[in-house]
Amino acid sequence: MKLDDILVGIQRVDADWMERAAARTASLAMPPRALGRLHELAERLCGIRQTLDINIDSKAVLVMAGDHGVAGEGTSAFPQEVTGAMVMNFLAGGAGINAISRHVGAKVVVVDVGIIPDIPVPDAGSDHRFYVEKVGRGTASFTKGPAMSVEDARKSVMVGFKRASALFEEGVAILGTGDMGIGNTTPSAAIGVLLTGKSIDEMTGPGTGLDDAGIARKKEIIRQGLEINRPNPGDGMDVLSKVGGFEIGAIAGVILAAAHHQRPVMVDGFISTAGALIAQSLSPAVVDYMFAGHCSEEPGHGHMLSHLGLDPILNLGLRLGEGTGGVLAMDVMEAAVKVFTEVLTFDEAGVPDK
Amino acid sequence: MKLDDILVGIQRVDADWMERAAARTASLAMPPRALGRLHELAERLCGIRQTLDINIDSKAVLVMAGDHGVAGEGTSAFPQEVTGAMVMNFLAGGAGINAISRHVGAKVVVVDVGIIPDIPVPDAGSDHRFYVEKVGRGTASFTKGPAMSVEDARKSVMVGFKRASALFEEGVAILGTGDMGIGNTTPSAAIGVLLTGKSIDEMTGPGTGLDDAGIARKKEIIRQGLEINRPNPGDGMDVLSKVGGFEIGAIAGVILAAAHHQRPVMVDGFISTAGALIAQSLSPAVVDYMFAGHCSEEPGHGHMLSHLGLDPILNLGLRLGEGTGGVLAMDVMEAAVKVFTEVLTFDEAGVPDK
Repeated sequence: MKLDDILVGIQRVDADWMERAAARTASLAMPPRALGRLHELAERLCGIRQTLDINIDSKAVLVMAGDHGVAGEGTSAFPQEVTGAMVMNFLAGGAGINAISRHVGAKVVVVDVGIIPDIPVPDAGSDHRFYVEKVGRGTASFTKGPAMSVEDARKSVMVGFKRASALFEEGVAILGTGDMGIGNTTPSAAIGVLLTGKSIDEMTGPGTGLDDAGIARKKEIIRQGLEINRPNPGDGMDVLSKVGGFEIGAIAGVILAAAHHQRPVMVDGFISTAGALIAQSLSPAVVDYMFAGHCSEEPGHGHMLSHLGLDPILNLGLRLGEGTGGVLAMDVMEAAVKVFTEVLTFDEAGVPDK
Repeated sequence: MKLDDILVGIQRVDADWMERAAARTASLAMPPRALGRLHELAERLCGIRQTLDINIDSKAVLVMAGDHGVAGEGTSAFPQEVTGAMVMNFLAGGAGINAISRHVGAKVVVVDVGIIPDIPVPDAGSDHRFYVEKVGRGTASFTKGPAMSVEDARKSVMVGFKRASALFEEGVAILGTGDMGIGNTTPSAAIGVLLTGKSIDEMTGPGTGLDDAGIARKKEIIRQGLEINRPNPGDGMDVLSKVGGFEIGAIAGVILAAAHHQRPVMVDGFISTAGALIAQSLSPAVVDYMFAGHCSEEPGHGHMLSHLGLDPILNLGLRLGEGTGGVLAMDVMEAAVKVFTEVLTFDEAGVPDK
């Protein structure tokens, strides 16, 4: 399937099914909408799926990994080889995303969209799925020119679309977005500046742990990147190619796939939401399919979520990425689904309404 | 065991074990404390249990039910018979607390601490456990004198202590507090005024759905209750007897039991937190064992949590009670435990630290 055909086919979520869902909520044996946001989550899922018979039993997270030319510019507290080492850790089941996904019952699927090293693919019998879909071996530093070509930007989006589509076709009912890539808060902040209109100061934070001097340097790198590349803020693909990253493009593709397949997607933190901004720029209706798992400690994240019109489910001071906050929020989403489908109505329960 | 002996035996949580836990967190293969509040939750649990080998596999919620004399004063949007009808619904598995508890894997245990009707106890083979421990058949209206005698206040606390202790002795690792009682936001607000020092205006809200005129009436009822009874704000048992409720006393007892047995307790919303204020008044160290599951839509709840020094885990606009917000937050707590115990260290994962 071609990207342009995907983009024109994406529809808004069905308001009629959301109204029918709200009528069921009103009949449940509890004060009106007494479980607050849990009702909203379930009702939007009814709209997305066009049914009141919702479930999200089958869950997965796609962790997209890529390396970044800007990591060589002193923009991260960690060395670049951590990207590959953490991909190995995901495949060993030892990272934060693995622990949280086991808890929630979500499959972890890792995709190398463009990291520098070659990581061995686990045996077919392994619990962990890993796909090598390298668009390159790390992006170029955007201080010297575009991070990648427009063709590679499109390729990275299509990697995400393909892998997410395969999972939805297997029966996955909700997908989380995840990321790994040392240096990737820098391209994410640059994308945030371009697509939300906020300033570099508002959008740039410590990432994995920069000090004040490091943050100042990171802001200067972003300023250079925007000046040299002059991305067009009205064109998400131009923004992605000039200051983005392979995994960020793939995340945008996952979100497009969710909208295309009419499935919910749980967006994680700062990097995932940069991908969501790219997806929104390519096709504004995709926001109807997105849920914001949490609001990150990274200061620009709240600005990104406001721009998308998303209210985060959790506020737990998370700033890890990997998909952790999104997968954790799937648990709240599943509680919302069970309240919607399992709580008896006033009539069924024989409870007098007011 | 006597209440006074229980109260003097309660100890602060062990700071040394919390420090040892923080050292383990620092070794995990992720940026320093990148999972924010999840680390705090796990570390306090280590302090409570005095071990790094934590788990909360076995979970339960105690739903305490009681009726209220003030319900006859037009303080609730729902008729008083809903209390008993909802107890029946809990035992049928059809309420919000049942759906959320099934999702989280928590047992629901219902206790009649003093509702007006007699509800049949389910067969021994039922999934649902129900204990009848009536201290009375509804409290008296506190507009005419004390809601209950000091002796009955102590009895209600000991019902909660006994039922919670039995669950901890069965091996339950974390308990949630829950409530059912039409009219019970009125005594809870009165307790909040007395024990936090906030005004009646700040502490009184719509409960299950009062309009502005109803809220004004509720405030007047509380004003009358405080004037006629003159509770001593320095004496939680006096406050409980004069303006409290049987289920609120029982919730205070559950919290005392958690501290006594050195187990965590997940406090739900406005009514549960009124019980927590009573427990804190009786023995200030109990706050070390409490976790605030969520911040309710009921406007006084935030003031209560601030007074206790508790930061809520969830903010989802819930206002149902029954224990729903606390049980939902157990899921986040369990994710925190799994991150703490399952994520590999930098050394184990072979990931370079910065």
